[in-house]
Amino acid sequence: MDTNAAPSAAHAAMQTKSIGPRDSRTFADRCRMVRRTTEQLCEPLAVDDYMLQSMPDASPIKWHLAHTTWFFETFVLSRYLRGYRPFHPQFGFLFNSYYEAVGPRWPRAERGLLSRPSVAEVYRYRAYVDDHFARVLSGLPAEIANLPAELAEQAATISLGINHEQQHQELMITDLKHGWSMNPLHPVYRDAISDAGDPPPLNWVEFDEGLRSVGACGQGFAFDNEAPRHRVFVNRFAIASRLVTVADYLEFMDDGGYHRADLWLSDGWAARCAGDWTTPLYWRQEEGAWSVVSMAGVQPLNPAEPLCHVSYYEADAFARWAGARLPTEAEWETASAGIPIAGHFLEAGRFHPAAAVAEDDRGPLNQLYGEVWQWTASPYISYPGYRPPIGALGEYNGKFMSNQMVLRGASCVTPRSHARRTYRNFFPPGARWQFSGLRLARDCE
Amino acid sequence: MDTNAAPSAAHAAMQTKSIGPRDSRTFADRCRMVRRTTEQLCEPLAVDDYMLQSMPDASPIKWHLAHTTWFFETFVLSRYLRGYRPFHPQFGFLFNSYYEAVGPRWPRAERGLLSRPSVAEVYRYRAYVDDHFARVLSGLPAEIANLPAELAEQAATISLGINHEQQHQELMITDLKHGWSMNPLHPVYRDAISDAGDPPPLNWVEFDEGLRSVGACGQGFAFDNEAPRHRVFVNRFAIASRLVTVADYLEFMDDGGYHRADLWLSDGWAARCAGDWTTPLYWRQEEGAWSVVSMAGVQPLNPAEPLCHVSYYEADAFARWAGARLPTEAEWETASAGIPIAGHFLEAGRFHPAAAVAEDDRGPLNQLYGEVWQWTASPYISYPGYRPPIGALGEYNGKFMSNQMVLRGASCVTPRSHARRTYRNFFPPGARWQFSGLRLARDCE
Amino acid sequence: MDTNAAPSAAHAAMQTKSIGPRDSRTFADRCRMVRRTTEQLCEPLAVDDYMLQSMPDASPIKWHLAHTTWFFETFVLSRYLRGYRPFHPQFGFLFNSYYEAVGPRWPRAERGLLSRPSVAEVYRYRAYVDDHFARVLSGLPAEIANLPAELAEQAATISLGINHEQQHQELMITDLKHGWSMNPLHPVYRDAISDAGDPPPLNWVEFDEGLRSVGACGQGFAFDNEAPRHRVFVNRFAIASRLVTVADYLEFMDDGGYHRADLWLSDGWAARCAGDWTTPLYWRQEEGAWSVVSMAGVQPLNPAEPLCHVSYYEADAFARWAGARLPTEAEWETASAGIPIAGHFLEAGRFHPAAAVAEDDRGPLNQLYGEVWQWTASPYISYPGYRPPIGALGEYNGKFMSNQMVLRGASCVTPRSHARRTYRNFFPPGARWQFSGLRLARDCE
Amino acid sequence: MDTNAAPSAAHAAMQTKSIGPRDSRTFADRCRMVRRTTEQLCEPLAVDDYMLQSMPDASPIKWHLAHTTWFFETFVLSRYLRGYRPFHPQFGFLFNSYYEAVGPRWPRAERGLLSRPSVAEVYRYRAYVDDHFARVLSGLPAEIANLPAELAEQAATISLGINHEQQHQELMITDLKHGWSMNPLHPVYRDAISDAGDPPPLNWVEFDEGLRSVGACGQGFAFDNEAPRHRVFVNRFAIASRLVTVADYLEFMDDGGYHRADLWLSDGWAARCAGDWTTPLYWRQEEGAWSVVSMAGVQPLNPAEPLCHVSYYEADAFARWAGARLPTEAEWETASAGIPIAGHFLEAGRFHPAAAVAEDDRGPLNQLYGEVWQWTASPYISYPGYRPPIGALGEYNGKFMSNQMVLRGASCVTPRSHARRTYRNFFPPGARWQFSGLRLARDCE
Repeated sequence: MDTNAAPSAAHAAMQTKSIGPRDSRTFADRCRMVRRTTEQLCEPLAVDDYMLQSMPDASPIKWHLAHTTWFFETFVLSRYLRGYRPFHPQFGFLFNSYYEAVGPRWPRAERGLLSRPSVAEVYRYRAYVDDHFARVLSGLPAEIANLPAELAEQAATISLGINHEQQHQELMITDLKHGWSMNPLHPVYRDAISDAGDPPPLNWVEFDEGLRSVGACGQGFAFDNEAPRHRVFVNRFAIASRLVTVADYLEFMDDGGYHRADLWLSDGWAARCAGDWTTPLYWRQEEGAWSVVSMAGVQPLNPAEPLCHVSYYEADAFARWAGARLPTEAEWETASAGIPIAGHFLEAGRFHPAAAVAEDDRGPLNQLYGEVWQWTASPYISYPGYRPPIGALGEYNGKFMSNQMVLRGASCVTPRSHARRTYRNFFPPGARWQFSGLRLARDCE
Repeated sequence: MDTNAAPSAAHAAMQTKSIGPRDSRTFADRCRMVRRTTEQLCEPLAVDDYMLQSMPDASPIKWHLAHTTWFFETFVLSRYLRGYRPFHPQFGFLFNSYYEAVGPRWPRAERGLLSRPSVAEVYRYRAYVDDHFARVLSGLPAEIANLPAELAEQAATISLGINHEQQHQELMITDLKHGWSMNPLHPVYRDAISDAGDPPPLNWVEFDEGLRSVGACGQGFAFDNEAPRHRVFVNRFAIASRLVTVADYLEFMDDGGYHRADLWLSDGWAARCAGDWTTPLYWRQEEGAWSVVSMAGVQPLNPAEPLCHVSYYEADAFARWAGARLPTEAEWETASAGIPIAGHFLEAGRFHPAAAVAEDDRGPLNQLYGEVWQWTASPYISYPGYRPPIGALGEYNGKFMSNQMVLRGASCVTPRSHARRTYRNFFPPGARWQFSGLRLARDCE
Repeated sequence: MDTNAAPSAAHAAMQTKSIGPRDSRTFADRCRMVRRTTEQLCEPLAVDDYMLQSMPDASPIKWHLAHTTWFFETFVLSRYLRGYRPFHPQFGFLFNSYYEAVGPRWPRAERGLLSRPSVAEVYRYRAYVDDHFARVLSGLPAEIANLPAELAEQAATISLGINHEQQHQELMITDLKHGWSMNPLHPVYRDAISDAGDPPPLNWVEFDEGLRSVGACGQGFAFDNEAPRHRVFVNRFAIASRLVTVADYLEFMDDGGYHRADLWLSDGWAARCAGDWTTPLYWRQEEGAWSVVSMAGVQPLNPAEPLCHVSYYEADAFARWAGARLPTEAEWETASAGIPIAGHFLEAGRFHPAAAVAEDDRGPLNQLYGEVWQWTASPYISYPGYRPPIGALGEYNGKFMSNQMVLRGASCVTPRSHARRTYRNFFPPGARWQFSGLRLARDCE
Repeated sequence: MDTNAAPSAAHAAMQTKSIGPRDSRTFADRCRMVRRTTEQLCEPLAVDDYMLQSMPDASPIKWHLAHTTWFFETFVLSRYLRGYRPFHPQFGFLFNSYYEAVGPRWPRAERGLLSRPSVAEVYRYRAYVDDHFARVLSGLPAEIANLPAELAEQAATISLGINHEQQHQELMITDLKHGWSMNPLHPVYRDAISDAGDPPPLNWVEFDEGLRSVGACGQGFAFDNEAPRHRVFVNRFAIASRLVTVADYLEFMDDGGYHRADLWLSDGWAARCAGDWTTPLYWRQEEGAWSVVSMAGVQPLNPAEPLCHVSYYEADAFARWAGARLPTEAEWETASAGIPIAGHFLEAGRFHPAAAVAEDDRGPLNQLYGEVWQWTASPYISYPGYRPPIGALGEYNGKFMSNQMVLRGASCVTPRSHARRTYRNFFPPGARWQFSGLRLARDCE
């Protein structure tokens, strides 16, 4: 019986480099690669898995496949490919996510009810759109710097679509993981991984007070919410050299962390009580031994690995318990200046954060990217002078600027070329199904 | 593009006769035929359709396939086949419906979250159980009348399993119809049907008062809730010669039926308001023309066809508006005495109630079976002296005896051999997704 | 501090006889007495208590006072007193309970939000209506038998209003008890009562099978739902000589009654789980000792007293555990033939069921009336040939005929003159805040 | 009939000056005055009004009266008055609001269910506590500056209690207004007010970019969340000279403001749809004329008065429509430097924001205080270096630092002495029942 049959080594195919600014491939090649990666991510799945929607926040794989395609159809092909005929008259209704300007749409919580179009038809949809997309791409040069205005707009929209699809690659894994985590048969996506060794010690790295410049400077792709670059006065602070580990968090738990209201924000305590949280998401305990749901099924919990799948509320409570706090966005961006982007990303095929080992301890700050997103103390609001784009694409980021917190870095399911120092990820403070952990900071007197 | 591609003529294969007492085939053959019919019903489906669960009351096709199989595994193979090893250690947990005595079970509302086991594995489960079931069947004679006690118990349990599976055949269609009805692509299960002609006129057939015997007499299979046969005093009454039609109901609607609280039970009016009911389930109106979701997609509404997909509350309100009432169980059983079981059943492959035509008007009472289940005025409670079976199978019927109403007859998706004069179907008064309609009755002064 | 100050002996004033057919007082006097009793029931209350609404099913005392008054204003004064001017133009909107025909009304669940009109103003409303009501009463003779048609209709409507107000007297106590039961200060309405002695043994009283006549015969006041009198075939049965006691029920609980799903109806088990029921409503256990919320505050639980504040589901589960069942309406009415109406009613001022004592054991059947309402096995549906009255008063009983069960007898908070052998009380099967208990029955072979 | 009887001139008694730093009265006198004001606010009420709780966010008047008293009992008398015996052993449980460290507490949403203690007893509670409080106050000097440490702590805790009670004075009015707004009898608290005249024109006042100091500097009372004073870099900006008026907002509404998703934050649009918002809270339209629920009953809407009872979402959408934005906290504090605290406060007895008139237009910025709280663009988070107090009082402000937005200024129901330039009020972005409006800001290129 093969319910949990480990996949073929399909994901190995992804271990090649993906789209990225420092890439020697053409823009068109990088676009094609991203589209292909999305489909490669599905290779270990049964058709049944494509329709799974375990909560309103998560979407079925089938929907991700179609929605990312709809994005190109709507914002690229319909605008820039003369005579383009949409694949199906109702797919705009079914696969629009939240663009009010584009029209009504299928309710988010009911995406799992769409048994049709079938998976097979969604793949035909992708092929149809990719076929037409190739024609648009063929009209662009190998590199997209310094294009004339008309082509620059096309290239920018395509870049947005590609980055959008990369975001959905990450969501496909997080949503699938959530759906499978509820299945008592423990489906398996890839083989188990054994990490060994102890994490390096936690050091505090200090930074002086001063006026800092924060945000994207306009070189290379960035989302609108990363701009404009602006000045922030930052007090003297210290930040931890590495991520908080499972071992660190077990101390908090052993000290009653989930049972001491004084450590929690009021909303956090309410969430903890309503959800009956007593561990991070996906942890289990049997006969004293901790295990965790991973993409390799239920596996023993490794104390050395970065803490993952905690909400902002848990991150905040842990930091308070530790006599520290979360860093602000500005502090994180200050501290990460000049540090290269390295770590385990989607292409590593792990789909699980890696424990830091001594030899990773190469600089003053480690694990800034890859592994887990890091909750910050900063609510997700606009930067001073922020202006969203005109039209439907203006709904991309700005309209979510309330009741969410910023996460920085990148995770083990973020495509490598998608990680950036100025990247602002954001989720509601109670969200736990993303690969989210934390790094500590503290004031310096 | 073939989203709505009409199925092959797969369902035609079912048009052969199914299991039934008047059948010349052996008991074992009849059992195999029922098991096979379940799978034949799935032939027009995409794999995607098997996981669809559109509301807690409905179950995914995959779950129906597995649950009916679990029933045989648990109540037949584990008891009567020495050395039987269950197919999978957790399927008992996943596919138990409500038998508390058998242990805990997967929550009903979350059946749609089981992307695993895959459809392919569920079919392997069925094959495995059928294979072992064949061995049990081979130990039984061709006919199951007058068996020794030990074999009689086996045969009775198997008969229950077969009747149970037939119930689920009906539910598979009703649940799939509900799920597809929400899909804007309007999936299609079979070709459209054209009925023509006007229904025969409604006549009132009178019956004298008297002491009547009601319930199953012990000949042939019957569920426990149909026994014991007992006496009921029935006043003089009249019952309608045919079902209420769509045309009849449109008059009620035109007369403000959905907007006059005085016609409704209090709970019914609350349900009507909460659900914003202004038509039966599945009706639509565009530019003045009525259409209806059917297994052939959205089709024009035929005024001559029996009213279908109404709740008890709507049936009751219609009857009050018509100056009549619903018949009681005892009246329905009194009136149906001596009338043969005829009509359009599952095997007809229509999956839609047929309009009565003049030549159907052959007896004093028509359309007693097939087409639509008929709501009665009788709450579903036990007959005097009722005793449920000992053990887990005692949970089959008795424990649902509150807050439900009895329906009599059978529908266009009931297997022919499953229909019986004493059959007591039951659903909550607000349920509309079954093929449920009504026949009028009235007092005689 | 006098939070729980015991009331003055105010309720003693009620210990006089109330309205009733066998009363020597005039009809008008009996009407006035009922109106006065309603206000006397409020004497132990603080103004604060009048606005308490602890759940949607319960209403504030203030609302009861006004609603019963609105009934007379709407159905008596506005119809029969020429030139009557309603007290306030919006009281019809505020104090209509559920009469759709009379117009829109204030939402039931929000009755507790009406801080205005103040209690003082509601009493002025009552005085105003009573003043005008006196004029109507003065036009009626001392007795209301054999009146001319015009006056007969008036007298019938007034009788309905008086019986309606008596129903609300019972509800005032049950609703207040529910509201106070949630208050940790344990408010007290009257002094504690000490009952002593053991209940008489339970005997089974048998009745032969036969055709029985059931329902009101038209002599004296009866609600529409008690008619028409009709024939029912009743099998041979036995019924218990007394009510189930607390001691009986403790055996059920000790035997795991609240933890054995096999004893419960499916809906009952769901209610038990959803409400986390492990005792009847209002029971508490501290250091092994049972106590119960009563109108005298929290008091020790007396094992000899009748079981009270159980739902139909608990009554049904207990009966199944006891190897018995609940009686049907027809059985209860058969068994109670010829037995006088006796027991502890509202006028006794106990507001708590009394333990039967040996000397109460005077007939074959005891405790038929007073103490606690007795759940029957009969769903609340219409009697054959039932016709509700024309107009708004037709909404009195008939429209509630779904999803409720009939209770027979009367309780310790039912006015004495309101109890009748044919009386059909009804509540949803999960309701527990009424004074509801049970009497066992069983089949006789 | 006097349902809506206008109150005596009771509130006139409040028009004297209240507690405040520039006050010539002693500290003890100022404390007594605040306690007395709380009770004076209740003079127009019926006993019935004290128990009204119209939503979980609002509390009954009775609860406010007791909770503010419990605060002194718990944090002052029990700590600083030797031998103090609490008034009632359960009042700590009933009247603790949210201090987890002090123990369990009565559920917030059920405060309206406490018919006991009665209003009379709550007033006895207040008198008992005030009596003991007087003894503590008598141990303090006339002024509380430069006290020895031991007394300084006492004085600081008392000051916190007094400021806490002032906060509840504001909430008493907002909660009562909400409860009464649902009552179709339109209760009246005070006589109607007529304002006349047009508001002054809106001017934009510009401020240069620069490093600004924000927060309380330690002189006079301030809440913990106003500290520490810290530096913020503020870009060049402009801020409006006056509040947004009803007339301004009607233009937004006329331009489809409530029907254009592009103007709204995503969460705001969801709140608007869920609540079916098409106007600010309390607005009504009949035959084209706008009216508004006020403490003087339903009154015509004055276009000149400040917009009030809007959520952050509406304020944000209006600002976007106007081509502007909300100011940040730092901008508001920058702009208000040096401007005296003036406007209509609680003591004015209006309980309704006043329309600005030409002669009010005395400085570059008007209406900074009084009238309505002003939503800012700043999420409510801690200032850099913030440390909450140790112990239960540490739960005062810090634990609410998520999912709320800061409001600045003060409203027409804020006590005059409670208003401060550095004051940080905060509410969830969807809250509308506070006296909340807005002032526009914009970037300067």
